[in-house]
Amino acid sequence: MATIQQIIRKRPWLGWLIFVATVVVVFFLGLLASSIMERRAEASFAYQPEVEHSQWEPRSEVWGENFPRQYERWKATRDTSFRTKYNGNAPIDMLERNPRLVILWANYGFSKEYDQAKGHAWAIRDMRHNLRTGAPVDGRSSPMPNTCWTCKSPDVPRVMSKIGAEEFYKGSWEERGHQIVNPIGCADCHEAESMNLQVPRPALVEAFERRGRDIEDATHQQMRRYVCAQCHSEYYFKGEGNYLVFPWDKGREVEDMEAYYDERDFADWTHGISKAPMIKAQHPDYEIFMQGIHAKRGLACADCHMPYTSEGGQKFTDHKIVSPLKYIDKTCLVCHKESEKQLMEDVYTRFDKVKASQYKLEKKLVQAHFEAQKAWELGATEEQMKPALMDIRHAQWRWGYIANSHGAPFHAPIECLRVYNTAMGIAQDARLKLSRILSSLGYNKEVPVPDISTKAKAQEVVGLDMDKLNRQKEKFMEEVVPRWEEKARQREKGYDVKELSD
Amino acid sequence: MATIQQIIRKRPWLGWLIFVATVVVVFFLGLLASSIMERRAEASFAYQPEVEHSQWEPRSEVWGENFPRQYERWKATRDTSFRTKYNGNAPIDMLERNPRLVILWANYGFSKEYDQAKGHAWAIRDMRHNLRTGAPVDGRSSPMPNTCWTCKSPDVPRVMSKIGAEEFYKGSWEERGHQIVNPIGCADCHEAESMNLQVPRPALVEAFERRGRDIEDATHQQMRRYVCAQCHSEYYFKGEGNYLVFPWDKGREVEDMEAYYDERDFADWTHGISKAPMIKAQHPDYEIFMQGIHAKRGLACADCHMPYTSEGGQKFTDHKIVSPLKYIDKTCLVCHKESEKQLMEDVYTRFDKVKASQYKLEKKLVQAHFEAQKAWELGATEEQMKPALMDIRHAQWRWGYIANSHGAPFHAPIECLRVYNTAMGIAQDARLKLSRILSSLGYNKEVPVPDISTKAKAQEVVGLDMDKLNRQKEKFMEEVVPRWEEKARQREKGYDVKELSD
Repeated sequence: MATIQQIIRKRPWLGWLIFVATVVVVFFLGLLASSIMERRAEASFAYQPEVEHSQWEPRSEVWGENFPRQYERWKATRDTSFRTKYNGNAPIDMLERNPRLVILWANYGFSKEYDQAKGHAWAIRDMRHNLRTGAPVDGRSSPMPNTCWTCKSPDVPRVMSKIGAEEFYKGSWEERGHQIVNPIGCADCHEAESMNLQVPRPALVEAFERRGRDIEDATHQQMRRYVCAQCHSEYYFKGEGNYLVFPWDKGREVEDMEAYYDERDFADWTHGISKAPMIKAQHPDYEIFMQGIHAKRGLACADCHMPYTSEGGQKFTDHKIVSPLKYIDKTCLVCHKESEKQLMEDVYTRFDKVKASQYKLEKKLVQAHFEAQKAWELGATEEQMKPALMDIRHAQWRWGYIANSHGAPFHAPIECLRVYNTAMGIAQDARLKLSRILSSLGYNKEVPVPDISTKAKAQEVVGLDMDKLNRQKEKFMEEVVPRWEEKARQREKGYDVKELSD
Repeated sequence: MATIQQIIRKRPWLGWLIFVATVVVVFFLGLLASSIMERRAEASFAYQPEVEHSQWEPRSEVWGENFPRQYERWKATRDTSFRTKYNGNAPIDMLERNPRLVILWANYGFSKEYDQAKGHAWAIRDMRHNLRTGAPVDGRSSPMPNTCWTCKSPDVPRVMSKIGAEEFYKGSWEERGHQIVNPIGCADCHEAESMNLQVPRPALVEAFERRGRDIEDATHQQMRRYVCAQCHSEYYFKGEGNYLVFPWDKGREVEDMEAYYDERDFADWTHGISKAPMIKAQHPDYEIFMQGIHAKRGLACADCHMPYTSEGGQKFTDHKIVSPLKYIDKTCLVCHKESEKQLMEDVYTRFDKVKASQYKLEKKLVQAHFEAQKAWELGATEEQMKPALMDIRHAQWRWGYIANSHGAPFHAPIECLRVYNTAMGIAQDARLKLSRILSSLGYNKEVPVPDISTKAKAQEVVGLDMDKLNRQKEKFMEEVVPRWEEKARQREKGYDVKELSD
């Protein structure tokens, strides 16, 4: 029998055939190996938790056992060292910085205390400390309802899952103090089983439903907005039961929501100086973001506030949510080929112009409140005052729509200035009407504005006894909060992996 | 003697050597040829005109002999077919479209006629036809000085080169009608010898000098802005001799120029209704462009208004200067990776918001003028009125800074809205002051605004006899303009290549 070499020597084409066949076989073997590896990678991506826990596990440290990197970065939201010219997450007393706010919110909780927002990890601590929630001790109730807890904690969907949202909202804020103890965390945005994004709070979902949209149809990129929008939106407390509603039925622009509130004669409070029926814009962050160029280009909140980061060979989204200016290299620079310095300057150009317009508008609003006060003093009638008070309501609502929103001057600077422009016209219309009323009552000159150059002076003007409020709060912190925490500790001890006790 | 084949057969390496040597030689021959071709290309780039002409040759058709492509596109500025929602170059009667303008400009030429700007080729034709220049016939003078010609024609630098700018500006508009006959063209921006960019008008150069800058230091990219800025800027006529000045000494922002004018007690005219000392913002296009993001990113006017285009294998800048929306593929799309539709939408989002704010502001300004009129009627004193009239002056100046500028809502939308915001506050301050004055004179209610719903009605309100103005203009066009043109024809016949007769 001839050896292979002999055969090949007789038929040289056979040598080539063998060579080509070998190459083809090796190529397909490679393909096969690659395919197997990919499948294994996919299999490992299907989330297999090391620690099993309930969907409504409120403690981020439990979720963190499976996702140590994300958890560590979430914990880092405790850091309050980032301070920019206008924002950041440093502890800044905004009333001290801008005492006009005390006047604009006279007779409303925000005139007592309003601080720069810090990180998510502070949500519970700051809410307890804030004077707005009052001091429910010595038989007093909090001035706020349970609805106020809604956006502060993953304990909220935990309790809601048992008793429903409607029941949850009812009653006074202190009633659920022992239930709501963990700050905004993992369960607020993730499904435990798949780690998919979810929106456990009903207000956003219901607002969508009323306009014929189903959140189940959302794409992943939309969900990267909606998990934020479930809280970072405009809302109000509807009816006796303080049901939390997003007023989006006519649209999400400032005029749409104004019309919504007007139709319902809704007012958050009666102004302490002008007696105008006020609407407090909360923080329509999502609504304003959606009107800017970054939303138009398809970005989601997470693209800039939770940029991809890496540790060793691992790439993951940064859960230390903060101003994107903190990591320009990971945020702006992903798309914009400019220097960090240039990009920072561009952001500040927007902020400077929007803020300058905000401050001008505030001055007119403050004057309007005192002019209305003077008119009441001189005996103006409700009928006379109504058109001017409605102007004050509308102008300050429009001011707040922008001024109370996080990052609005960057998210949609053109919309900010458009809205301020309408607000400026309306605020001045109010003053014109008040000037005619004042003249008709024999007062035909400028109404002096008292000295409100510091927070303390402004708070005196609006009649707040700050010493008393602070003393009461201190007592509440000492006597009530430790009891809440102890009760929570006992409850959480009993949590098993699948079912949480109430 | 052995043949080459025999030698190579003995020493096979020699064959390889010859092969390699041949390849190397051919490669270097190629390099040489390429280098020679490049030098020839460079030599041909050093401009060698086919037709020699003077630097001050005002007829673009003469320059066009050497640059037929650029000339053809320049001629195409006669086309007036491009119409967008707000701009373009179509013949639109802006007073008809927005009759409020008639009121805002009462007692000023612009209330007679104000049309959408067309292309450069229309500059002379439109200026003669426009009612603002009056009808200098039957012994009447034009209401305008010769300074008005400054930006309309390359005949201007021609005449200035002989008699100087100061002399040029003096006297009434009709005096130089026979000298200034060619519309804005080649000589306005180019040096004849090198085709380099140049700024032949003195106002820009002098404004730079007063701030210690030498236009000779300008880069090419800066020159691609400055040739436009020599005309597309804010200016005023200074003193008896109507010397053309850019009011940039304190800066180019709206507040800077306002302070400049206030310091000099300068007014363009006294308002026909309110008697306020008004400043007419001309068209601070360059100033506003420089405050926008495109200027920050280093763009020049020509980048978008004169994009590179090609014809056959020739690439050249398009001299049909028009809105960049006309050629989005050659303008926006060079940098932005979006669809034409999306980019157009983005432009209109800016325009819509800025324009809405403009219209709101105009309504308040119109009211203020009539309120002031009422106050005068009721016997207000100059001293009483001054603060309110100064507010009207400032608010309308700020309105005009944006509203009279070409493309401002795109060039710098944030700055537009910031400025409108200040203007809205000031306009309403004026109305508040007027309301107090009116009350003190026994009038404590809204001042009615007459029906100004059409241009004709508004022009009647401001007391214009339009029939008369139109008849006079017609006579001027029939009797005077043909004489100007005949005189120009005779003069231009005598132009030789290097020296032009006066």
